Amino acid sequence: MNKDNRRNFIKKTAALSLATGIMTSSPKPVQSNYILNQQVNGINIVGPKAGYTPEIGTLVSMMNWMRNTMLRPVHGMSQKDLDYLHDAKSNSIGAMLMHLVATERFYQENTFEGSVHFEPGGDNDELYRAASNLGDAGRATFKGKELDYYLDKLEACREFSLKELAKYDDGWLEVVDTQFWGSPTNNYCKWFHVAEHESNHNGQIKYLKSRLHTNG
Amino acid sequence: MNKDNRRNFIKKTAALSLATGIMTSSPKPVQSNYILNQQVNGINIVGPKAGYTPEIGTLVSMMNWMRNTMLRPVHGMSQKDLDYLHDAKSNSIGAMLMHLVATERFYQENTFEGSVHFEPGGDNDELYRAASNLGDAGRATFKGKELDYYLDKLEACREFSLKELAKYDDGWLEVVDTQFWGSPTNNYCKWFHVAEHESNHNGQIKYLKSRLHTNG
Repeated sequence: MNKDNRRNFIKKTAALSLATGIMTSSPKPVQSNYILNQQVNGINIVGPKAGYTPEIGTLVSMMNWMRNTMLRPVHGMSQKDLDYLHDAKSNSIGAMLMHLVATERFYQENTFEGSVHFEPGGDNDELYRAASNLGDAGRATFKGKELDYYLDKLEACREFSLKELAKYDDGWLEVVDTQFWGSPTNNYCKWFHVAEHESNHNGQIKYLKSRLHTNG
Repeated sequence: MNKDNRRNFIKKTAALSLATGIMTSSPKPVQSNYILNQQVNGINIVGPKAGYTPEIGTLVSMMNWMRNTMLRPVHGMSQKDLDYLHDAKSNSIGAMLMHLVATERFYQENTFEGSVHFEPGGDNDELYRAASNLGDAGRATFKGKELDYYLDKLEACREFSLKELAKYDDGWLEVVDTQFWGSPTNNYCKWFHVAEHESNHNGQIKYLKSRLHTNG
């Protein structure tokens, strides 16, 4: 998504952002044109969506709501903000954004037939391994990138998920993986986790955002 | 829930905790007998549940999964851990647990007919106002309490939610509040937020847990 599109989108979503701000913190414009395409009307309506079977649409509406909420705190962040390490153990906000991409990519491969996952522009598995593990690997790998780098990866990954999810029906959500780390786990649980996991890191992003560049 | 029950529950849920550990961090026993009652079999299955209409049961299975995940990091925490303030702006883990109770209580009042909400043992609204706002009010109000204080409030609040949710049907989830802070918002979105909001604070709880008592 180029910056002109983002600028236009931000204008268009002022009302949307105002509407969705209440459930978390203060409302701010949101960057992500997939949300513009999917959800400007009815971001706060969880339920069936055109283009998906009813239960998959309900899941997608939760994923969209969560993504919209998670992107709000990072809006307008500079490279310096995204790279900020609050202490020796902290992950940067940029690394956490990439971690969300890597997590979604893992569940794409784990749940979609043929173990497919999004793989833009020749990115290699090392990149996603670093993002999955965070810690030292994340700190070493994810720095010096602008916000668009992360937003474009989040968006490409999510667009692939939504395109794939549209191919399945509600029965697929019920499919149980009996060997998923030793516990019967269905596809609905795996994809609910993809959504709520963004909230987990959003809590950390907001904690760090309120302390940017305060460690001297 | 008394400590003997908790101790028994911890033994019984060792396998469950092992099973559910994979989606977040390392598996640990979980304290909450409502989870024992509701979900020992099938914590990782999101979908309809006995005692609820199908979509409400699906929501409840997400709420149960999220609660089980959120409680894992606080297992065994001391009063000192729960009161720990990492910096002047930090909320304690105890205050965040109480904040989750206050948030769920708000949505009980907002969505259940008659604006009912859980109100144990003569607790007053000041307590929940402090928990809703966190910050200085939370820091001043929530200290010197053992883990059971928070677990019992979380459990009583959630038990009330589950009892009420069993009275409604899937159509109720679709009911839109057109005036909810200026944006059409349905009951499903409000209760999805109750679930994902626990993940937001769980991210902060885990951040603080890994830094307990390191600020000198």
